[in-house]
Amino acid sequence: MKSRENIPKATIERLPLYYRCLDKMDTFEEVEVVSSKDLGGKLGIPSTQVRKDLSYYGEFGRRGVGYNVNELKTSVGKILGVDRIWPAVLAGAGHLGHALVNYKTFTTMGFEITHVLDNDSTKIGTKINERQVEDIKKMEAIIKENEIKLGVISVPTEAAQDVADQMVAAGIKAIWNFAPTRLYVPDDVDVKNEDLAVGIVSLIYNLSWQEMEAKGE
Amino acid sequence: MKSRENIPKATIERLPLYYRCLDKMDTFEEVEVVSSKDLGGKLGIPSTQVRKDLSYYGEFGRRGVGYNVNELKTSVGKILGVDRIWPAVLAGAGHLGHALVNYKTFTTMGFEITHVLDNDSTKIGTKINERQVEDIKKMEAIIKENEIKLGVISVPTEAAQDVADQMVAAGIKAIWNFAPTRLYVPDDVDVKNEDLAVGIVSLIYNLSWQEMEAKGE
Repeated sequence: MKSRENIPKATIERLPLYYRCLDKMDTFEEVEVVSSKDLGGKLGIPSTQVRKDLSYYGEFGRRGVGYNVNELKTSVGKILGVDRIWPAVLAGAGHLGHALVNYKTFTTMGFEITHVLDNDSTKIGTKINERQVEDIKKMEAIIKENEIKLGVISVPTEAAQDVADQMVAAGIKAIWNFAPTRLYVPDDVDVKNEDLAVGIVSLIYNLSWQEMEAKGE
Repeated sequence: MKSRENIPKATIERLPLYYRCLDKMDTFEEVEVVSSKDLGGKLGIPSTQVRKDLSYYGEFGRRGVGYNVNELKTSVGKILGVDRIWPAVLAGAGHLGHALVNYKTFTTMGFEITHVLDNDSTKIGTKINERQVEDIKKMEAIIKENEIKLGVISVPTEAAQDVADQMVAAGIKAIWNFAPTRLYVPDDVDVKNEDLAVGIVSLIYNLSWQEMEAKGE
Protein backbone atom coordinates (compact mmCIF):
# COMPACT_ATOMS: atom_id res chain seq x y z
CA MET A 1 0.00 0.00 0.00
CA LYS A 2 1.25 3.47 -0.84
CA SER A 3 1.69 5.90 1.99
CA ARG A 4 -1.45 7.88 2.63
CA GLU A 5 -0.06 11.21 1.40
CA ASN A 6 0.63 9.86 -2.08
CA ILE A 7 -2.93 8.79 -2.81
CA PRO A 8 -4.86 11.35 -4.92
CA LYS A 9 -7.88 12.95 -3.31
CA ALA A 10 -10.02 12.01 -6.31
CA THR A 11 -9.12 8.34 -5.76
CA ILE A 12 -10.18 8.55 -2.13
CA GLU A 13 -13.44 10.18 -3.19
CA ARG A 14 -14.18 7.34 -5.59
CA LEU A 15 -13.63 4.58 -3.01
CA PRO A 16 -17.08 5.06 -1.39
CA LEU A 17 -18.65 4.71 -4.85
CA TYR A 18 -16.83 1.41 -5.45
CA TYR A 19 -17.77 0.24 -1.99
CA ARG A 20 -21.44 1.08 -2.39
CA CYS A 21 -21.56 -0.64 -5.77
CA LEU A 22 -19.73 -3.77 -4.58
CA ASP A 23 -21.97 -3.94 -1.54
CA LYS A 24 -25.07 -3.91 -3.75
CA MET A 25 -23.65 -6.58 -6.05
CA ASP A 26 -22.62 -8.76 -3.11
CA THR A 27 -25.74 -8.36 -0.99
CA PHE A 28 -28.58 -8.01 -3.47
CA GLU A 29 -27.40 -9.30 -6.83
CA GLU A 30 -25.27 -12.26 -5.70
CA VAL A 31 -22.57 -11.41 -8.22
CA GLU A 32 -19.34 -13.32 -7.47
CA VAL A 33 -16.84 -11.85 -9.90
CA VAL A 34 -16.71 -8.45 -11.59
CA SER A 35 -14.30 -6.98 -14.15
CA SER A 36 -12.90 -3.46 -13.79
CA LYS A 37 -14.84 -2.65 -16.97
CA ASP A 38 -18.18 -3.73 -15.50
CA LEU A 39 -17.52 -2.10 -12.13
CA GLY A 40 -16.47 1.13 -13.84
CA GLY A 41 -19.41 0.91 -16.24
CA LYS A 42 -21.92 0.93 -13.40
CA LEU A 43 -20.35 4.13 -12.04
CA GLY A 44 -19.38 5.93 -15.24
CA ILE A 45 -15.65 5.53 -14.43
CA PRO A 46 -13.19 4.21 -17.07
CA SER A 47 -11.81 0.73 -16.33
CA THR A 48 -8.23 2.03 -16.43
CA GLN A 49 -9.12 4.48 -13.67
CA VAL A 50 -10.73 1.71 -11.58
CA ARG A 51 -7.57 -0.40 -11.82
CA LYS A 52 -5.33 2.57 -11.03
CA ASP A 53 -7.42 3.63 -8.02
CA LEU A 54 -7.36 0.16 -6.51
CA SER A 55 -3.64 -0.33 -7.25
CA TYR A 56 -2.79 2.36 -4.68
CA TYR A 57 -3.99 0.01 -1.98
CA GLY A 58 -2.45 -3.28 -3.08
CA GLU A 59 -3.03 -6.02 -5.62
CA PHE A 60 -6.61 -7.03 -6.11
CA GLY A 61 -8.17 -9.28 -8.73
CA ARG A 62 -6.60 -11.41 -11.42
CA ARG A 63 -5.81 -10.30 -14.94
CA GLY A 64 -8.40 -11.67 -17.37
CA VAL A 65 -10.60 -12.94 -14.52
CA GLY A 66 -11.64 -9.90 -12.53
CA TYR A 67 -12.25 -9.17 -8.89
CA ASN A 68 -13.97 -11.41 -6.37
CA VAL A 69 -16.81 -9.12 -5.35
CA ASN A 70 -17.02 -10.13 -1.71
CA GLU A 71 -13.24 -10.01 -1.17
CA LEU A 72 -12.87 -6.64 -2.87
CA LYS A 73 -15.81 -5.20 -0.92
CA THR A 74 -14.22 -6.36 2.34
CA SER A 75 -10.84 -4.91 1.38
CA VAL A 76 -12.24 -1.54 0.25
CA GLY A 77 -14.42 -1.46 3.37
CA LYS A 78 -11.34 -1.89 5.56
CA ILE A 79 -9.50 0.86 3.69
CA LEU A 80 -12.46 3.17 4.17
CA GLY A 81 -12.84 2.27 7.83
CA VAL A 82 -16.43 1.19 7.26
CA ASP A 83 -15.79 -2.37 8.43
CA ARG A 84 -16.98 -1.17 11.84
CA ILE A 85 -19.84 1.12 12.84
CA TRP A 86 -18.79 4.60 13.98
CA PRO A 87 -21.35 6.10 16.35
CA ALA A 88 -22.32 9.73 15.79
CA VAL A 89 -24.22 12.48 17.60
CA LEU A 90 -26.63 14.57 15.59
CA ALA A 91 -27.41 18.13 16.74
CA GLY A 92 -30.68 19.50 15.32
CA ALA A 93 -33.85 17.40 15.11
CA GLY A 94 -35.63 19.40 12.40
CA HIS A 95 -36.73 17.95 9.07
CA LEU A 96 -33.17 17.57 7.86
CA GLY A 97 -32.17 15.86 11.11
CA HIS A 98 -35.15 13.54 10.72
CA ALA A 99 -34.17 12.73 7.16
CA LEU A 100 -30.61 11.95 8.26
CA VAL A 101 -31.72 9.65 11.09
CA ASN A 102 -34.05 7.86 8.66
CA TYR A 103 -31.42 7.52 5.94
CA LYS A 104 -31.21 3.76 5.51
CA THR A 105 -27.82 3.33 3.91
CA PHE A 106 -25.66 5.01 6.54
CA THR A 107 -24.96 1.79 8.41
CA THR A 108 -23.68 0.07 5.29
CA MET A 109 -21.28 3.01 5.06
CA GLY A 110 -19.96 2.33 8.56
CA PHE A 111 -21.81 5.03 10.42
CA GLU A 112 -24.82 5.29 12.70
CA ILE A 113 -26.50 8.24 14.39
CA THR A 114 -26.77 6.93 17.93
CA HIS A 115 -27.83 10.16 19.66
CA VAL A 116 -30.11 12.96 18.52
CA LEU A 117 -29.97 16.30 20.34
CA ASP A 118 -32.01 19.48 20.21
CA ASN A 119 -32.62 22.54 22.38
CA ASP A 120 -36.34 22.74 21.56
CA SER A 121 -38.38 21.55 24.55
CA THR A 122 -41.23 20.47 22.24
CA LYS A 123 -38.84 18.09 20.48
CA ILE A 124 -36.93 16.76 23.50
CA GLY A 125 -38.40 13.42 24.54
CA THR A 126 -40.06 12.70 21.17
CA LYS A 127 -38.80 9.82 19.06
CA ILE A 128 -37.30 9.63 15.57
CA ASN A 129 -37.36 5.98 14.59
CA GLU A 130 -36.12 4.38 17.78
CA ARG A 131 -33.99 7.33 18.84
CA GLN A 132 -35.26 9.59 21.58
CA VAL A 133 -34.42 13.28 21.09
CA GLU A 134 -32.28 14.39 24.05
CA ASP A 135 -31.56 17.82 25.51
CA ILE A 136 -28.55 19.37 23.78
CA LYS A 137 -27.28 20.34 27.24
CA LYS A 138 -26.36 16.68 27.66
CA MET A 139 -24.19 16.66 24.53
CA GLU A 140 -20.81 16.91 26.25
CA ALA A 141 -21.63 14.11 28.67
CA ILE A 142 -22.98 11.87 25.90
CA ILE A 143 -19.94 12.38 23.67
CA LYS A 144 -17.49 11.69 26.49
CA GLU A 145 -19.35 8.73 27.95
CA ASN A 146 -19.69 7.00 24.59
CA GLU A 147 -16.29 8.11 23.24
CA ILE A 148 -17.98 9.47 20.12
CA LYS A 149 -15.68 10.99 17.50
CA LEU A 150 -18.24 11.96 14.84
CA GLY A 151 -20.67 14.86 15.04
CA VAL A 152 -23.41 15.84 12.60
CA ILE A 153 -24.70 19.42 12.61
CA SER A 154 -28.16 20.19 11.22
CA VAL A 155 -29.00 23.23 13.36
CA PRO A 156 -29.80 26.72 11.99
CA THR A 157 -26.80 28.62 10.58
CA GLU A 158 -26.57 31.06 13.46
CA ALA A 159 -26.20 28.23 16.01
CA ALA A 160 -23.76 26.07 14.05
CA GLN A 161 -20.43 27.50 15.28
CA ASP A 162 -21.53 27.33 18.90
CA VAL A 163 -22.57 23.68 18.53
CA ALA A 164 -19.30 22.89 16.73
CA ASP A 165 -17.30 24.49 19.57
CA GLN A 166 -19.14 22.37 22.12
CA MET A 167 -18.59 19.22 20.06
CA VAL A 168 -14.87 19.90 19.72
CA ALA A 169 -14.52 20.65 23.44
CA ALA A 170 -16.14 17.29 24.22
CA GLY A 171 -13.76 15.33 21.97
CA ILE A 172 -15.37 15.20 18.49
CA LYS A 173 -12.72 14.81 15.76
CA ALA A 174 -14.87 14.85 12.62
CA ILE A 175 -17.85 17.10 11.89
CA TRP A 176 -20.35 16.64 9.09
CA ASN A 177 -21.85 20.09 8.73
CA PHE A 178 -25.17 20.75 6.98
CA ALA A 179 -25.47 24.39 8.08
CA PRO A 180 -24.55 26.65 5.14
CA THR A 181 -21.67 28.34 6.91
CA ARG A 182 -17.96 27.78 7.32
CA LEU A 183 -17.00 26.38 10.72
CA TYR A 184 -13.79 27.33 12.49
CA VAL A 185 -12.24 24.34 14.26
CA PRO A 186 -8.76 23.31 15.44
CA ASP A 187 -6.41 21.72 12.88
CA ASP A 188 -6.88 18.21 14.21
CA VAL A 189 -10.62 18.32 13.62
CA ASP A 190 -11.92 17.40 10.18
CA VAL A 191 -14.97 19.21 8.76
CA LYS A 192 -16.99 18.12 5.75
CA ASN A 193 -19.42 20.81 4.64
CA GLU A 194 -22.55 19.52 2.98
CA ASP A 195 -23.80 22.84 1.66
CA LEU A 196 -26.95 21.84 -0.18
CA ALA A 197 -27.31 25.14 -2.04
CA VAL A 198 -23.90 24.68 -3.63
CA GLY A 199 -24.88 21.26 -4.98
CA ILE A 200 -27.55 22.67 -7.25
CA VAL A 201 -25.39 25.34 -8.83
CA SER A 202 -23.49 23.11 -11.26
CA LEU A 203 -26.86 22.06 -12.68
CA ILE A 204 -27.99 25.67 -13.05
CA TYR A 205 -24.65 26.61 -14.60
CA ASN A 206 -25.14 23.93 -17.25
CA LEU A 207 -28.81 24.84 -17.86
CA SER A 208 -27.82 28.46 -18.25
CA TRP A 209 -25.10 27.65 -20.81
CA GLN A 210 -27.48 25.37 -22.71
CA GLU A 211 -29.91 28.23 -23.04
CA MET A 212 -27.25 30.71 -24.12
CA GLU A 213 -26.00 28.25 -26.73
CA ALA A 214 -29.55 27.62 -27.95
CA LYS A 215 -29.99 31.34 -28.38
CA GLY A 216 -26.65 31.55 -30.18
CA GLU A 217 -25.19 34.04 -27.70
CA MET B 1 -13.95 34.65 -21.68
CA LYS B 2 -12.46 31.25 -22.42
CA SER B 3 -14.64 28.77 -24.23
CA ARG B 4 -16.59 26.63 -21.84
CA GLU B 5 -14.70 23.41 -22.55
CA ASN B 6 -11.38 24.92 -21.45
CA ILE B 7 -12.48 25.84 -17.96
CA PRO B 8 -11.42 23.27 -15.34
CA LYS B 9 -14.22 21.47 -13.50
CA ALA B 10 -12.63 22.42 -10.16
CA THR B 11 -12.86 26.10 -11.11
CA ILE B 12 -16.56 25.75 -11.92
CA GLU B 13 -17.11 24.01 -8.61
CA ARG B 14 -15.47 26.88 -6.72
CA LEU B 15 -17.61 29.59 -8.38
CA PRO B 16 -20.64 28.93 -6.15
CA LEU B 17 -18.38 29.29 -3.11
CA TYR B 18 -17.13 32.67 -4.33
CA TYR B 19 -20.67 33.71 -5.13
CA ARG B 20 -22.02 32.71 -1.74
CA CYS B 21 -19.19 34.52 0.02
CA LEU B 22 -19.51 37.70 -2.09
CA ASP B 23 -23.27 37.70 -1.56
CA LYS B 24 -22.79 37.58 2.23
CA MET B 25 -20.23 40.39 2.14
CA ASP B 26 -22.42 42.51 -0.12
CA THR B 27 -25.74 41.92 1.59
CA PHE B 28 -24.90 41.51 5.26
CA GLU B 29 -21.45 42.95 5.87
CA GLU B 30 -21.57 45.96 3.54
CA VAL B 31 -18.05 45.31 2.33
CA GLU B 32 -17.26 47.32 -0.79
CA VAL B 33 -13.86 46.04 -1.86
CA VAL B 34 -12.16 42.72 -1.24
CA SER B 35 -8.70 41.41 -2.16
CA SER B 36 -8.17 37.95 -3.64
CA LYS B 37 -6.27 37.15 -0.44
CA ASP B 38 -9.21 38.05 1.81
CA LEU B 39 -11.76 36.35 -0.43
CA GLY B 40 -9.62 33.23 -0.61
CA GLY B 41 -8.94 33.39 3.13
CA LYS B 42 -12.62 33.15 3.95
CA LEU B 43 -12.90 30.01 1.86
CA GLY B 44 -9.57 28.33 2.49
CA ILE B 45 -8.51 28.86 -1.15
CA PRO B 46 -5.07 30.38 -2.03
CA SER B 47 -5.24 33.90 -3.50
CA THR B 48 -3.37 32.75 -6.63
CA GLN B 49 -6.10 30.19 -7.22
CA VAL B 50 -8.83 32.82 -6.75
CA ARG B 51 -7.21 35.08 -9.35
CA LYS B 52 -6.69 32.18 -11.76
CA ASP B 53 -10.29 30.95 -11.40
CA LEU B 54 -11.74 34.39 -12.10
CA SER B 55 -9.35 35.06 -14.99
CA TYR B 56 -11.07 32.33 -17.03
CA TYR B 57 -14.12 34.56 -17.22
CA GLY B 58 -12.57 37.94 -17.95
CA GLU B 59 -10.73 40.71 -16.17
CA PHE B 60 -12.05 41.59 -12.75
CA GLY B 61 -10.61 43.84 -10.07
CA ARG B 62 -7.60 46.13 -10.10
CA ARG B 63 -4.09 45.14 -9.13
CA GLY B 64 -3.27 46.48 -5.67
CA VAL B 65 -6.85 47.56 -5.07
CA GLY B 66 -8.95 44.44 -5.21
CA TYR B 67 -12.41 43.56 -6.42
CA ASN B 68 -15.56 45.64 -6.09
CA VAL B 69 -17.71 43.19 -4.13
CA ASN B 70 -21.06 44.08 -5.68
CA GLU B 71 -19.72 44.11 -9.25
CA LEU B 72 -17.89 40.82 -8.84
CA LYS B 73 -20.93 39.21 -7.23
CA THR B 74 -23.09 40.34 -10.16
CA SER B 75 -20.56 39.04 -12.69
CA VAL B 76 -20.09 35.67 -11.00
CA GLY B 77 -23.86 35.40 -10.59
CA LYS B 78 -24.34 35.88 -14.32
CA ILE B 79 -21.69 33.29 -15.11
CA LEU B 80 -23.42 30.83 -12.79
CA GLY B 81 -26.84 31.61 -14.21
CA VAL B 82 -28.10 32.54 -10.74
CA ASP B 83 -29.00 36.10 -11.80
CA ARG B 84 -32.50 34.77 -12.40
CA ILE B 85 -34.62 32.32 -10.43
CA TRP B 86 -35.00 28.88 -11.98
CA PRO B 87 -38.22 27.20 -10.90
CA ALA B 88 -38.02 23.54 -9.89
CA VAL B 89 -40.38 20.66 -9.16
CA LEU B 90 -39.67 18.52 -6.12
CA ALA B 91 -40.89 14.91 -6.08
CA GLY B 92 -41.15 13.43 -2.57
CA ALA B 93 -42.56 15.39 0.36
CA GLY B 94 -40.95 13.39 3.16
CA HIS B 95 -38.63 14.86 5.78
CA LEU B 96 -35.88 15.44 3.24
CA GLY B 97 -38.33 17.10 0.85
CA HIS B 98 -39.51 19.30 3.72
CA ALA B 99 -35.96 20.25 4.58
CA LEU B 100 -35.26 21.15 0.95
CA VAL B 101 -38.37 23.32 0.62
CA ASN B 102 -37.43 25.07 3.87
CA TYR B 103 -33.80 25.60 2.87
CA LYS B 104 -33.51 29.37 2.97
CA THR B 105 -30.51 30.02 0.79
CA PHE B 106 -31.71 28.35 -2.40
CA THR B 107 -33.17 31.54 -3.85
CA THR B 108 -29.89 33.42 -3.41
CA MET B 109 -28.42 30.59 -5.48
CA GLY B 110 -30.89 31.22 -8.29
CA PHE B 111 -33.28 28.41 -7.66
CA GLU B 112 -36.69 27.94 -6.09
CA ILE B 113 -38.84 24.87 -5.51
CA THR B 114 -42.14 26.08 -6.93
CA HIS B 115 -44.02 22.76 -6.92
CA VAL B 116 -43.98 19.88 -4.43
CA LEU B 117 -45.36 16.52 -5.52
CA ASP B 118 -46.07 13.25 -3.74
CA ASN B 119 -48.13 10.11 -4.32
CA ASP B 120 -49.19 9.77 -0.66
CA SER B 121 -52.84 10.79 -0.28
CA THR B 122 -52.23 11.80 3.35
CA LYS B 123 -49.64 14.34 2.15
CA ILE B 124 -51.43 15.68 -0.93
CA GLY B 125 -53.19 18.93 -0.05
CA THR B 126 -51.07 19.65 3.04
CA LYS B 127 -48.74 22.64 3.02
CA ILE B 128 -44.98 23.00 3.38
CA ASN B 129 -44.31 26.66 3.98
CA GLU B 130 -46.60 28.23 1.40
CA ARG B 131 -46.37 25.34 -1.04
CA GLN B 132 -49.28 22.96 -1.30
CA VAL B 133 -48.29 19.33 -1.90
CA GLU B 134 -49.81 18.22 -5.21
CA ASP B 135 -50.59 14.79 -6.64
CA ILE B 136 -47.57 13.41 -8.48
CA LYS B 137 -49.95 12.41 -11.28
CA LYS B 138 -50.06 16.10 -12.19
CA MET B 139 -46.27 16.31 -12.58
CA GLU B 140 -46.15 16.14 -16.38
CA ALA B 141 -48.80 18.86 -16.76
CA ILE B 142 -47.12 21.11 -14.19
CA ILE B 143 -43.68 20.79 -15.80
CA LYS B 144 -45.02 21.51 -19.28
CA GLU B 145 -47.32 24.35 -18.28
CA ASN B 146 -44.60 26.17 -16.33
CA GLU B 147 -41.74 25.24 -18.69
CA ILE B 148 -39.76 23.88 -15.75
CA LYS B 149 -36.29 22.52 -16.55
CA LEU B 150 -35.14 21.53 -13.07
CA GLY B 151 -36.34 18.50 -11.09
CA VAL B 152 -35.45 17.46 -7.55
CA ILE B 153 -35.92 13.82 -6.51
CA SER B 154 -36.32 12.94 -2.83
CA VAL B 155 -38.47 9.83 -3.20
CA PRO B 156 -37.49 6.35 -1.94
CA THR B 157 -34.74 4.63 -3.94
CA GLU B 158 -37.06 2.11 -5.59
CA ALA B 159 -39.25 4.88 -7.05
CA ALA B 160 -36.45 7.20 -8.20
CA GLN B 161 -35.88 5.88 -11.74
CA ASP B 162 -39.59 5.91 -12.51
CA VAL B 163 -39.93 9.53 -11.32
CA ALA B 164 -36.82 10.50 -13.31
CA ASP B 165 -38.29 8.92 -16.47
CA GLN B 166 -41.50 10.88 -16.02
CA MET B 167 -39.58 14.11 -15.43
CA VAL B 168 -37.47 13.61 -18.55
CA ALA B 169 -40.53 12.78 -20.67
CA ALA B 170 -42.13 16.04 -19.52
CA GLY B 171 -39.11 18.16 -20.48
CA ILE B 172 -36.83 18.31 -17.41
CA LYS B 173 -33.18 18.90 -18.41
CA ALA B 174 -31.45 18.84 -15.02
CA ILE B 175 -32.13 16.48 -12.12
CA TRP B 176 -30.88 16.90 -8.58
CA ASN B 177 -31.12 13.39 -7.19
CA PHE B 178 -31.15 12.64 -3.45
CA ALA B 179 -32.08 8.96 -3.80
CA PRO B 180 -28.97 6.83 -3.27
CA THR B 181 -29.08 5.21 -6.69
CA ARG B 182 -27.70 5.93 -10.13
CA LEU B 183 -30.29 7.26 -12.55
CA TYR B 184 -30.27 6.42 -16.24
CA VAL B 185 -31.23 9.42 -18.37
CA PRO B 186 -30.64 10.58 -21.97
CA ASP B 187 -27.34 12.34 -22.77
CA ASP B 188 -28.90 15.80 -22.90
CA VAL B 189 -30.15 15.54 -19.31
CA ASP B 190 -27.78 16.48 -16.51
CA VAL B 191 -27.90 14.59 -13.21
CA LYS B 192 -26.28 15.66 -9.97
CA ASN B 193 -26.34 12.89 -7.38
CA GLU B 194 -26.43 14.08 -3.82
CA ASP B 195 -25.71 10.75 -2.17
CA LEU B 196 -25.65 11.65 1.49
CA ALA B 197 -24.04 8.40 2.59
CA VAL B 198 -21.03 9.06 0.37
CA GLY B 199 -20.46 12.46 1.98
CA ILE B 200 -19.67 10.98 5.37
CA VAL B 201 -17.12 8.47 4.17
CA SER B 202 -14.19 10.85 3.71
CA LEU B 203 -14.61 11.78 7.37
CA ILE B 204 -14.66 8.14 8.45
CA TYR B 205 -11.65 7.39 6.23
CA ASN B 206 -9.68 10.11 8.00
CA LEU B 207 -10.86 9.06 11.47
CA SER B 208 -9.89 5.51 10.70
CA TRP B 209 -6.37 6.49 9.56
CA GLN B 210 -5.95 8.70 12.62
CA GLU B 211 -6.69 5.75 14.84
CA MET B 212 -4.36 3.45 12.93
CA GLU B 213 -1.56 6.00 13.16
CA ALA B 214 -2.21 6.52 16.87
CA LYS B 215 -1.89 2.76 17.37
CA GLY B 216 1.29 2.76 15.25
CA GLU B 217 -0.11 0.25 12.75
